[in-house]
Amino acid sequence: MAVQVAVCGPRECSRTEWERAREVGRLLAERGAVVVCGGYGGVMAAVAAGAYRAGGVVVGVLSADDRVGACEDLTVVLPTGLGEARNNVIVNAADAVIVVGGSWGTLSEVALAVRRGGVPVVQLGGWQVLDEHGRPLDAVRRAATAAEALDRTGLWP
Amino acid sequence: MAVQVAVCGPRECSRTEWERAREVGRLLAERGAVVVCGGYGGVMAAVAAGAYRAGGVVVGVLSADDRVGACEDLTVVLPTGLGEARNNVIVNAADAVIVVGGSWGTLSEVALAVRRGGVPVVQLGGWQVLDEHGRPLDAVRRAATAAEALDRTGLWP
Amino acid sequence: MAVQVAVCGPRECSRTEWERAREVGRLLAERGAVVVCGGYGGVMAAVAAGAYRAGGVVVGVLSADDRVGACEDLTVVLPTGLGEARNNVIVNAADAVIVVGGSWGTLSEVALAVRRGGVPVVQLGGWQVLDEHGRPLDAVRRAATAAEALDRTGLWP
Amino acid sequence: MAVQVAVCGPRECSRTEWERAREVGRLLAERGAVVVCGGYGGVMAAVAAGAYRAGGVVVGVLSADDRVGACEDLTVVLPTGLGEARNNVIVNAADAVIVVGGSWGTLSEVALAVRRGGVPVVQLGGWQVLDEHGRPLDAVRRAATAAEALDRTGLWP
Repeated sequence: MAVQVAVCGPRECSRTEWERAREVGRLLAERGAVVVCGGYGGVMAAVAAGAYRAGGVVVGVLSADDRVGACEDLTVVLPTGLGEARNNVIVNAADAVIVVGGSWGTLSEVALAVRRGGVPVVQLGGWQVLDEHGRPLDAVRRAATAAEALDRTGLWP
Repeated sequence: MAVQVAVCGPRECSRTEWERAREVGRLLAERGAVVVCGGYGGVMAAVAAGAYRAGGVVVGVLSADDRVGACEDLTVVLPTGLGEARNNVIVNAADAVIVVGGSWGTLSEVALAVRRGGVPVVQLGGWQVLDEHGRPLDAVRRAATAAEALDRTGLWP
Repeated sequence: MAVQVAVCGPRECSRTEWERAREVGRLLAERGAVVVCGGYGGVMAAVAAGAYRAGGVVVGVLSADDRVGACEDLTVVLPTGLGEARNNVIVNAADAVIVVGGSWGTLSEVALAVRRGGVPVVQLGGWQVLDEHGRPLDAVRRAATAAEALDRTGLWP
Repeated sequence: MAVQVAVCGPRECSRTEWERAREVGRLLAERGAVVVCGGYGGVMAAVAAGAYRAGGVVVGVLSADDRVGACEDLTVVLPTGLGEARNNVIVNAADAVIVVGGSWGTLSEVALAVRRGGVPVVQLGGWQVLDEHGRPLDAVRRAATAAEALDRTGLWP
């Protein structure tokens, strides 16, 4: 079975984030990875476009129970009807998580992925978490480019 | 986007059910439908084998949060960690539901699909539900063969 | 900790079903059981009224993520945002399930409860399930009155 | 219906966190609020003990589908079987969220609560989140004592 990579990020994103997400998607498709995302706009639509148009398989795991607002470029669309609990489905499906940009919804996915353990989480830009002593928590790996993000997952050594 | 059909049935099934599910999978793949199933054994494994080996896209939506016990022949595997609540994800993803054989887990999916409304549910064999007056409820369409099951979904007029 | 009993039934119910559900609620409260229900109208509102007004603890597990349409007479209201997947939460919380009347949503709860195993399911009126040979499945116990329904759970021997 | 407050925090906590959580629980019960928590050890057990022993109603929303490992001092126990997706149920039930201490699981609840919007989130100790420019995000209110945490929810003006 193919490697599966979840790509998370906000529904509203900057131009830079869009470009990065699209490049992440394209590279994942080229390496034969299945892309799992939230299936709506912003970073989700960008990674779907990048992967699907490069011939990859893309799964959109929606919060709603219908397809309203789903992005194009999905091989499979799953309208879960679970609300934000669908974030757990995304994270549990992943051999690695790549995060582009920051939002509270995205942070919940980062936190779930780190909590789950054993799944590399790589961040392109985005937010940072400090512990109760103000020290940065280093559970998330950092990358500066899409290519580096894939490398830092460790899935393609 | 491709049509998506959920195929439901028990984890332990008869030889006849296995053959029917496999044929359903093969025919769905030939018509370009994405198959969504529970991703474990019995009817789930049979439909996955039928569709995947005919070149189709097959999604296994698992109840557990890991891949233990998942069948082969899946394009995408989603270990939801939701327990039996994953049945809702399967049903909500479907443009039509085809049921092969009967079990209590399968019946919960049939009931959810009928309750949702607007989604044709076709049954090959399987159980029957009577209302409080002992009258058969006709919300589920019946079919005698795999080919008839696809026809009765109404997705390919 | 108190015994917990799930009471399931349709959102739209007959006068008889309302009376029965209310009586079930009252009797459960008198025996000190916590009542878990779906928290909307019909049988759900009736059992909540019966239990709450007899001094019992009643939990309404809603499908929506807000409290719109929730019945009165709830000690705790849980707007899960899970859609019909909240049925699993109701069933998993139960030491026994009592069903009043029939609907497809209710049937999904019956099926989940029987599938789970080890939890007595007692039905007052409601639907019946036949296997593939047309034989009634006897996994659900039948009762004719509210008092008999409580007795047949086996929780108060 | 009573006000409902979710109290979140790690399963393993310091002595100080235990004392604070217990005090939060006691104060919430005294003000008539229903306490919703994760129902296991650490901060969850402490808040349950504080509230329940002061006569309050406490709901434990468990990730597992059985009661193994649940803390004492629960009025209602809901073994959801949803895994970490049960965090959404906790957050959606809350008129306010009080957080004691930090962990990745706790952070996922904070993030979900802020994302949901309209629900005050107050933190006693715990982690901090910086945006992509390294600036602290101020969506979470800070408190130094249990009493101050309740005040800062704004529920009792």
